[in-house]
Amino acid sequence: MNKPNAYQQLSQHFQQLAKLSHLNAITSWDQATMMPDGGNQARAEALAELAVIIHEKSTQPQLEEWLEQAKSQNLTSVQQASLREMERSWRNSTALPADLVKAKSLATARCEHAWREQRKANNWQAFQVNLQAVMQLAIEEAQIRADKSGLSRYDAMLDLYEPGMQMQRLDLVFGELQTWLPQLIQEVVDKQASWPKLKQYGNFPSEQQKQLGLAVMQKLQFDFKHGRLDVSAHPFCGGVPSDVRITTRYEEEDFTRSLMGIVHETGHARYEQNLPLDLVDLPVGQARSMGIHESQSLFFEMQLGRSQAFVEQLHPLVKQHLTQAKNMPLSELQQHYLSVKPGYIRVDADELTYPAHIMLRYQLERDLINQEIKVADIPELWDQKMQQYLGLSTKGNDKNGCMQDVHWPAGLIGYFPSYSLGAMYAAQFHAALVKAKPDTPDAVAKGDYSGVFAWLKQHIWSQASLYETDELVERATGESLNPAYFQQHLRSRYL
Amino acid sequence: MNKPNAYQQLSQHFQQLAKLSHLNAITSWDQATMMPDGGNQARAEALAELAVIIHEKSTQPQLEEWLEQAKSQNLTSVQQASLREMERSWRNSTALPADLVKAKSLATARCEHAWREQRKANNWQAFQVNLQAVMQLAIEEAQIRADKSGLSRYDAMLDLYEPGMQMQRLDLVFGELQTWLPQLIQEVVDKQASWPKLKQYGNFPSEQQKQLGLAVMQKLQFDFKHGRLDVSAHPFCGGVPSDVRITTRYEEEDFTRSLMGIVHETGHARYEQNLPLDLVDLPVGQARSMGIHESQSLFFEMQLGRSQAFVEQLHPLVKQHLTQAKNMPLSELQQHYLSVKPGYIRVDADELTYPAHIMLRYQLERDLINQEIKVADIPELWDQKMQQYLGLSTKGNDKNGCMQDVHWPAGLIGYFPSYSLGAMYAAQFHAALVKAKPDTPDAVAKGDYSGVFAWLKQHIWSQASLYETDELVERATGESLNPAYFQQHLRSRYL
Ligand SMILES: [Zn+2]
Ligand SMILES: [Zn+2]
Repeated sequence: MNKPNAYQQLSQHFQQLAKLSHLNAITSWDQATMMPDGGNQARAEALAELAVIIHEKSTQPQLEEWLEQAKSQNLTSVQQASLREMERSWRNSTALPADLVKAKSLATARCEHAWREQRKANNWQAFQVNLQAVMQLAIEEAQIRADKSGLSRYDAMLDLYEPGMQMQRLDLVFGELQTWLPQLIQEVVDKQASWPKLKQYGNFPSEQQKQLGLAVMQKLQFDFKHGRLDVSAHPFCGGVPSDVRITTRYEEEDFTRSLMGIVHETGHARYEQNLPLDLVDLPVGQARSMGIHESQSLFFEMQLGRSQAFVEQLHPLVKQHLTQAKNMPLSELQQHYLSVKPGYIRVDADELTYPAHIMLRYQLERDLINQEIKVADIPELWDQKMQQYLGLSTKGNDKNGCMQDVHWPAGLIGYFPSYSLGAMYAAQFHAALVKAKPDTPDAVAKGDYSGVFAWLKQHIWSQASLYETDELVERATGESLNPAYFQQHLRSRYL
Repeated sequence: MNKPNAYQQLSQHFQQLAKLSHLNAITSWDQATMMPDGGNQARAEALAELAVIIHEKSTQPQLEEWLEQAKSQNLTSVQQASLREMERSWRNSTALPADLVKAKSLATARCEHAWREQRKANNWQAFQVNLQAVMQLAIEEAQIRADKSGLSRYDAMLDLYEPGMQMQRLDLVFGELQTWLPQLIQEVVDKQASWPKLKQYGNFPSEQQKQLGLAVMQKLQFDFKHGRLDVSAHPFCGGVPSDVRITTRYEEEDFTRSLMGIVHETGHARYEQNLPLDLVDLPVGQARSMGIHESQSLFFEMQLGRSQAFVEQLHPLVKQHLTQAKNMPLSELQQHYLSVKPGYIRVDADELTYPAHIMLRYQLERDLINQEIKVADIPELWDQKMQQYLGLSTKGNDKNGCMQDVHWPAGLIGYFPSYSLGAMYAAQFHAALVKAKPDTPDAVAKGDYSGVFAWLKQHIWSQASLYETDELVERATGESLNPAYFQQHLRSRYL
């Protein structure tokens, strides 16, 4: 047998890493779903050991050599894409010096841990000390990543979650959003003021909700041979493409949130389950980006899930599975899924107000990383923007304002924009789908989603990371990101 | 900080290995309990990759050096015991050359895989070809282990599961057993001939059985902060000491098996949950041996679980949790747990006939490894011994004879004796406990097991691998293995 060439060496290396990530994915899922409390210490230590092994392998000195050599090999276009993604992965995992990685890990652990109590106590003064330490390291990290990649500081952080996206484009996207969203929210709130108050239907046992959720997953063609549904405190989609683990959390007083949460996670899951099998262990075979991933969950949840047709089809399932909801009229279920109400908390926000929360966070984290504002400025700016976008003041209420999210304490900068990019991509994909297959609304109205899934599979799921995001979106829709579709979608749904 | 000395280096090494074993334990548990079918390929590959990493670390060349150096260090007695167990672990994991490990892994995978169909088809002719290949490699393995350890071939294999045990002693133990067991079985069968036929009570839903099982685990002081109960095709006790995962399998027609299975696995679990925390990541902090492990599960299942007192306390729980058993009289429950009936299948055997199955397997595998018999001789010898010990012929019925177990196809030689050693140790421990605390039977009759558990914790669980098996047993009972207690126990229970 010949000595493997550089490209083959790299492929073997990343396939090996994928197997170690598999162990991480399953044991992390177990930690969130199955593990009894007393197992946490040993689990944390085992996962830390695994992280060390993965880090050692990811930073092997031969990798840089192989990456250089592979560039002059004669590669197919798929191999070229694969090499591009291997290099991105390598660049992102080797960029930071070990002492910065360690300092960051300590600072975020401290900040996150203290935050859980400080948030409850509304104690911004104590919290900001830790957050300053985290932000200082984030700025350092961004600078190092910027130097290595040739990108700007914030763009270098974006590259971790949304490769190819840039601050300049986000400024345009959110700048435009800012011109019409607050106004639209106000109009919709006024319109909905006459809606009747929602009735209470008593308790919905978790087991009934679970059976309902499974029935809906079935309808959405979740592949139960390659995945499962469980319960965790914070819903997520984990596991590996051949074994996707989604979770939810049942509230016995209100089934509607968990149910739509399951629809959302099923969107993430179907993307994972339909990634190309032959590339699944390589970076190029993985989901394109956080924003594209979220576009799939939001396609399921927003474009499909909250559509009139889908809620009509959900209605008999709800009545069938939930004893207490057997007399719930369709109109109430629809109202649940279309109510718009400005609120303090991002994770509780509806489809229309959610982007306002993201816009605010984007603007602040961008200015923090660019050192145009300081951590100490956050509460006042938060309050100003909440008033401006949603008409709510967070003065003196930091626990429901700038202390509500775990992202910054955890050192995640550049992550928030993907939520709204996802919503925008989803609207654009839906518009392209309807343009390409004009009979889609009729089919969906009859409960036939096969055309929808076929389009997503062909244009998104099977494409994994073969193309950069812009090219993926252009190939699927004929143009790169165009937020106009999102605006159209919101106006036509809510006005 | 000073450079760590050899003993400290070794400790760090084994602590790291324990973290990797943790990942293996949890993902293997998940594979058996949670994983959907379609996840198996990727899981198998991830586990194989982990095995490679564990093997690489376990065979690092520095280990031999450190082991040598540590022997001349000034060590406490606990450290000396720790060093002894580290050396045993190192010796067992480095003994085989890589090509033999690989050949064995291929041969056993092939044999085991084909066996699943060949057994169903009663196809000894096809099966024996694969088994011959496995056995040939097992003989090679035993020879290499013998050369490296200075033990005899079979003893070197025993050392993997039951360190310190020897063929010579097993010959005595089983030789003696053979003189009285077949006769005793016959007497008990005759005595039970007049017992009434057991009634059918209809179906017992799994969920009710699960709640009953959990109630019994609670009674047996299983620590649910450090463990859980789930379902798998083959019941086992897995996980890690701070997070012990036991499993069962519910048969809706018969709750008694799964229930006593849960009692059995709870015995394994409490041993694991009560290993000394400060040593838990080192070989010396692990369970002493397969035989001692089985002594704890069999203490729970046989000494305690099938005792009159325990079954009396089980009875109201059974009636409370199982709708269909709410009128079941105590006498029937007792009869379920004391019935003796010679049968073909080891895993279905009762307490009294089980050792006959083990005796037979021990004698054959010993002679196979010592090349006194050949694989081709197995069916005839099996039939002879089954007739001699249990009065049953397996002629032409290999699927319920020598093809019933996965152990030999999987290359496990030296493992079977631990089942009966466990039963013997359990009887000896029980006798020592009653001698030390004569009020034990009274307390147990009142449902107070605290004295029992305190004794086990003090003498067995907390001792982990601090002592070799003989010393552990002597310290606990005043003598080394004495099978007379097992005979006494069986006679007093069944005659
Ligand atoms: Zn999502
Ligand atoms: Zn056992």
